[in-house]
This record gives sequence, structure tokens and C-alpha cells, in this order.
Amino acid sequence: MSTSTSPLATPFPDMASVAGVTLRVARAHYKTWDRTDLTLAELAPGTTVAGVLTRSKCPSPEVEWCRAALVLGQARALVVNAGNSNAFTGHRGRAAVEAIAAQAAAQLGCQPSDVFVASTGVIGVPLPIDKAQAGVAAAFAAPEAGWRDAAETIGTTDTYPKGASATAVVDGRTVTIAAIIKGSGMIAPDMATMLGFVFTDAAVEAPFLQAALAAANARTFSCITVDGDTSTSDTVLAFATGAAGNTPLADDDSSGADAFRAALADVCRQLALLVVRDGEGATKLIEVTVEGAESDTSAHRIALSIANSPLVKTAIAGEDANWGRVVMAVGKAGEPAERDRLSILFGATRVARDGLAVEGYDEAPVAAHLKGQEVQIGVDLGLGEGRATVWTCDLTHGYISINADYRS
Amino acid sequence: MSTSTSPLATPFPDMASVAGVTLRVARAHYKTWDRTDLTLAELAPGTTVAGVLTRSKCPSPEVEWCRAALVLGQARALVVNAGNSNAFTGHRGRAAVEAIAAQAAAQLGCQPSDVFVASTGVIGVPLPIDKAQAGVAAAFAAPEAGWRDAAETIGTTDTYPKGASATAVVDGRTVTIAAIIKGSGMIAPDMATMLGFVFTDAAVEAPFLQAALAAANARTFSCITVDGDTSTSDTVLAFATGAAGNTPLADDDSSGADAFRAALADVCRQLALLVVRDGEGATKLIEVTVEGAESDTSAHRIALSIANSPLVKTAIAGEDANWGRVVMAVGKAGEPAERDRLSILFGATRVARDGLAVEGYDEAPVAAHLKGQEVQIGVDLGLGEGRATVWTCDLTHGYISINADYRS
Repeated sequence: MSTSTSPLATPFPDMASVAGVTLRVARAHYKTWDRTDLTLAELAPGTTVAGVLTRSKCPSPEVEWCRAALVLGQARALVVNAGNSNAFTGHRGRAAVEAIAAQAAAQLGCQPSDVFVASTGVIGVPLPIDKAQAGVAAAFAAPEAGWRDAAETIGTTDTYPKGASATAVVDGRTVTIAAIIKGSGMIAPDMATMLGFVFTDAAVEAPFLQAALAAANARTFSCITVDGDTSTSDTVLAFATGAAGNTPLADDDSSGADAFRAALADVCRQLALLVVRDGEGATKLIEVTVEGAESDTSAHRIALSIANSPLVKTAIAGEDANWGRVVMAVGKAGEPAERDRLSILFGATRVARDGLAVEGYDEAPVAAHLKGQEVQIGVDLGLGEGRATVWTCDLTHGYISINADYRS
Repeated sequence: MSTSTSPLATPFPDMASVAGVTLRVARAHYKTWDRTDLTLAELAPGTTVAGVLTRSKCPSPEVEWCRAALVLGQARALVVNAGNSNAFTGHRGRAAVEAIAAQAAAQLGCQPSDVFVASTGVIGVPLPIDKAQAGVAAAFAAPEAGWRDAAETIGTTDTYPKGASATAVVDGRTVTIAAIIKGSGMIAPDMATMLGFVFTDAAVEAPFLQAALAAANARTFSCITVDGDTSTSDTVLAFATGAAGNTPLADDDSSGADAFRAALADVCRQLALLVVRDGEGATKLIEVTVEGAESDTSAHRIALSIANSPLVKTAIAGEDANWGRVVMAVGKAGEPAERDRLSILFGATRVARDGLAVEGYDEAPVAAHLKGQEVQIGVDLGLGEGRATVWTCDLTHGYISINADYRS
């Protein structure tokens, strides 16, 4: 973990354990550092799994491994390596993933495809199999660890550990969802990677879990951006151990289906915002809401165009109510928009309406809003019912320092 | 013009006058500054015109005016305002454009649609009609100006004036193409805008000129990016006065058609690179070439994904041969790519091949190349014949300072 904590950091929450999940951490010594860097989660027999993975055309072997294993829908273990992303390492990288899976499977008496693997860190260097296998062996021998231990161990250049939890009543039983995530710092020559892991004691059939995770992802992880760059390794996995003993969630008619989905989405949203709050150089959390678009998809694209605009992000860093840059970002999105219907708000203050600056708007509340750590940009296109919200952070000298002021 | 000249600036070239084009500059006092800020180009009767305009969905009234006038294909004057972009100003902005066109048309005895107008500067403030009209009157009364005067007068936060010229033999006569451009600096609360104006004494029918300009644009202006943000006002216009007396260029069979197109593309390429060299905070000019893609379009998208990646741009700023970030940018482009066929070069040195780091490549020439002001990134996808080159600049503290370190 980095020593300089983000000004937007929040404390690690109290999180209950999840029956059927046993966490352990160990030192694989992937880098010359004095910290744990290998996380093992043992999962009870019968655990189901779902996942969303990077759409990068150049994914890591871990992502390819998980994509194949997800088809089977069951899991007995998760191994997370920090310090080496194993991306762009060809067959040797693939061999390392297979070795880890085989080793954990032998230990647990399951199939290698029941073992999920994720890695984050330096790119282009094959994960050293000897260190990985020694690390996995050490992890199996290690005492049980807590959520915070695991959250710290999966981190790389994160400036604080990130976790979130929620409960839901399913089939008359209270189930727990607990999750950890890492991202989005990086140092030379590491890659930014978002790795998120969600655990629940609810019994959930894999297709239902996949659908619920995909739906939550669309409104949470897919709605955050730090710099518009997509990692080769982004991974979110959800594991359901079934230890709560409820009738497995299988379809919309299942008791508690809505409650579970809502709790899962709540946890994913918390995790997503924790990542943005640790955005490189971030000093402000920015929420961009687009309304009145022709469709939700169109609203999402326009919101991302605003959230990814360097000019908008630097304006917020400068606490400057530069709505012209928001107009620019709306215009360049390529989505339906009519200048003469466009309204723009900073916080609760409308600064432009019907394609014109609002003359004499009160600048005091706008200035006060922009001085805060959480900034809201609102856009109303005035065309339809489409709506989307995305989150990003500002673009500051800190981002440049982290990413340019060194040689690898 | 800014006082701190870009380290990548090049001297203003010697440029011959173009028969049929009379340049004049004046002070419209759009801002409280001690400089000329209105440029007038009078064009001989019979001048044809072509143009490429921003695809922004929220264009300025000037862009809408030019788009409509281009349909007619003829021009007698160009008026360029610097200091106020007139964008997002509704009907009042439109009225200012109409007033300028009417005034110049009355002076020249032509139609208002023969007058082209472009503006750059602050957004959201209607162009003051009184200042514009006084400026146009002053320009008509001013002595003839040179290319450099005009190039400086259209500039806003450009750090140096930009011009380029070329000649071609058409129908046995040597014709001249001369052009000026402005972009891409900005200060609060101005908008970045690229305005380019090309003049030639060749006789060229408007459809041929439009096709030639569109083709040149696709390989030049559409291949540069400073920060991926698209202005509401980007405009490139080409005017052909016909004073050279050649048989008008009309189709591929015209004498000198290829030579003219090549010279026009050469001028556009020079102009485009001049804009990148004045990118905000730029310390390095980056050329990204993608080969082996499934199509030229695919190659172009991948090249832009690399050129717009903040992580790639900061790596170059840091003189860091971080090819992992290039892989990331290839992967996120969403275009066909296969990790195990991918090669990456910095300068002439191949650092990754067949999806693997080239073991033991010579780092000395890579380090030397990255220390220079002009950096080349090469990507070979190994899939097909598609090819594209784009140009950008690095992302530095200078960019943040220019765009964040102030309040508007």
C-alpha cells in the first residue's frame, strides 16, 4: 500500500465473516517488499460463482482462465497475486495460472476449474511459478485472516484498503454479502487493475448470480472511470457459499430475489465509489448525471464523455464552473443532443438553460459546491427519458506525478 | 499569443502571397488586450470554397453558417474573430454572424452567403455585434497584411503563429497553396478550437476542392489529438481564387489533379503537426503508427486509442518505455487484436513481439529515442494490411497548470 493516503479515503468498515469463506494471506515475495502479497479464499463445497471480466482484446491469462471456469459456475478457491499482473506473458504466464490452480485443487480435492486466479502488478513478466507455489503452500498453512488483511493483501498502489458489506433477507433468513476490491493506483511499470471479490453465504444458483452481478455491474463498475484506460486484467467475481441454508435463489420468483439483488448492487456501488475515491491524484469525487437523453445507453455515453474529458476534469480540479467544457463534452459524444434544449447544473444551481448561459445566476453556491470534495455535474438534454449516472475524479498534478515523474 | 513559446515550436515560414487573396487585420477589442483580433480575407470574384467542420452535436453558429454556405461553393470573404467563440449563445450569437456577413457582403457587393465567418475564444458570451461591426469596418479600411499578421491575429492561446505553403504544377502553371491555422491552447474560460484556412490561386471547381480537402483531412487533421476533446467550433476552409488562370480542376482527368491534391495534403499535414506541436504543456511530439490491422479504419481507431491514453502520454512525458500501457490501449480500443501476434516498437527498437517482451532488447537506443522531442510508437497487429498514423503530444504538468490552476 502507498504511504500517502487519498484525501477522499474512507475508513475500512466493520464487516462480518461470511459462513463458508475462509481467508488466508501469505508472502509470495513477488516484489522485494515487506508485506503479504498472496490472498487465498477457501470456499465451502457447493459454492457457486459469477463474474464480469475486462473486455480488453489483450486480456491476461488469469482473465482467460476465469472466463472459461465461469462457464461451469462452481468454485472452491480464489487465489489473488499482487505485484505481478502476469499480463502479456504468453504461454509462460498461462502455465503459472495452471500451476496455481492445480496446486490448490490438489490441496482441496477439487477440480482445477474450481480454482479462480487473479493477478495485478507489473506487466510483461511471467508470474514466477516457484514463488507462486511457495506462496500458495504458505497460505494453506497460514492462520485465518480477516477482511481487512485480505483487502490490504490484494492491493498494489492503492492508498487505502477497500471493503463493503450488506445484508438481505432471503427465504426468511438474513444473508450477508461482504466484498473487497483493489484499484486504481499504479506505479512504474505496473498496470492499473480493478480486482473485486464479493462473497455471500446465501445459496444462489450460478445463472441467477451471474445475472444479478451483470445487472449490478452495469450500474456500478461500468459507471466509473478514472482516466478512461481499461486494464488487461479487470475482474469482479462473486461467490455464494450457500451456508445460510436458504432455498437457492434461482429466478425472479425466488423468495428474497429482489432483496438479494438490491444488496448486491449496494455492495457493488460502494466498492465502485471506493475505487474512484482512490483515483490517482484525485482530490474530488465527481458525479455526472445525464437526464433527458433519447435512451439510457445514450445518456451513459454522454455521461462518460463528460467524465473522461481532461478539460472537464481539470476544470473541477481548478474549482472552475466551466460549463463550456461540459457543452464541449456533450457535443463530442456523438449522441443525439440539441444545443438549444441543453441545461447544465453544478450542484443544485442551473448555470445554462435552453442553450444559453443563465444570466445572473448566483455564483456563490456554485463556488461553495466546487470547493467541496464531492462535486455534482448535471446535464438535462431535454429530448427524452434516458438517464445515467457515472462517477469519476478530478485530473490533477498528482496524476501526472504518479504516471510521468519516474523512469521504469 | 501566449508569452511562453512551446519547446516544439518551429519558425514561421516564408510564404508567397496568393493572387486573388487580400489579407487585412484589425482590432475589434473582443477582449481587453493590445492586439489585432479580427482577420479579413477578401477573395477575388469566382473564388470557390470547400470545408470540413466539427462533428460536434453542439456546434457554434459560425459552424452552422459555414455548413449552409458551403453548399453553394463560392466565397468572396472570410472573417475570423479571436477572443470570443460565440458558441452556446443561441439566437443572439446567430444574429452576430448574420450581421458580419451582411456587412461584408454590402461592402463587396456580394451575397451574405459568400462571406465565411469563424470565431474562437470564450464560450457562452454572444459575440458583441457593435464590436464586430466596428472591427469589420476597420479591417476594410486597413492596409494589406501578410500571412504572419493573419496567423497571429487568428490565434488565441497559441504560443506561436502557424503557417504552411506548397506549390504544384497544374495545367502547365505553377500554383501556390498557402495556409494558416490556430490551435490548440486555451485558457479560462476559453475553448480550444482549431481554425485552419487554406488559400490557393489555382482554379478549382468546388466539388473537386471539397473532395480533395476531405481526403487530405482524413489523413491529417483527423489524425491529430491533443487531449481527445473536440471543439464546438473546429473549422478548416479552403479557398481557390482561380487567379492562376489554369483550366479549372474538375475531376481525376484534370491536368495536375494529383499534383494539386498532393500539395494540398502536404499543406494540411504541415498545419496539423503545427497544432500538435503547440499542444498544451507539450514537450514531445508523438507519432503513433499502427500496421497489420484488419482495416485502415481499425488501425486508425487503435492508433487514436493509444494517442488518447493518459497513461501512454504520461509515460512518454516521463521518457519511460512502458509498452505495457501501449498493450492496454490496444486492448481497450475494442478492435480486432490478438495478444500473441502483437509487436511494439519505440523508435526503431522492437520491445515486444508475438505477445511477449523481447528478452534482452537493447535499452540504450530506446532511452535515447525517448529523450528526444519526437517519439515514435509502432504497433504491428499481425492480422492484415490495415495501417494508420496519428500524432499527439505528451501529457505533462504543463497541461494541468494551463487547465486547472486558475479560476475563471
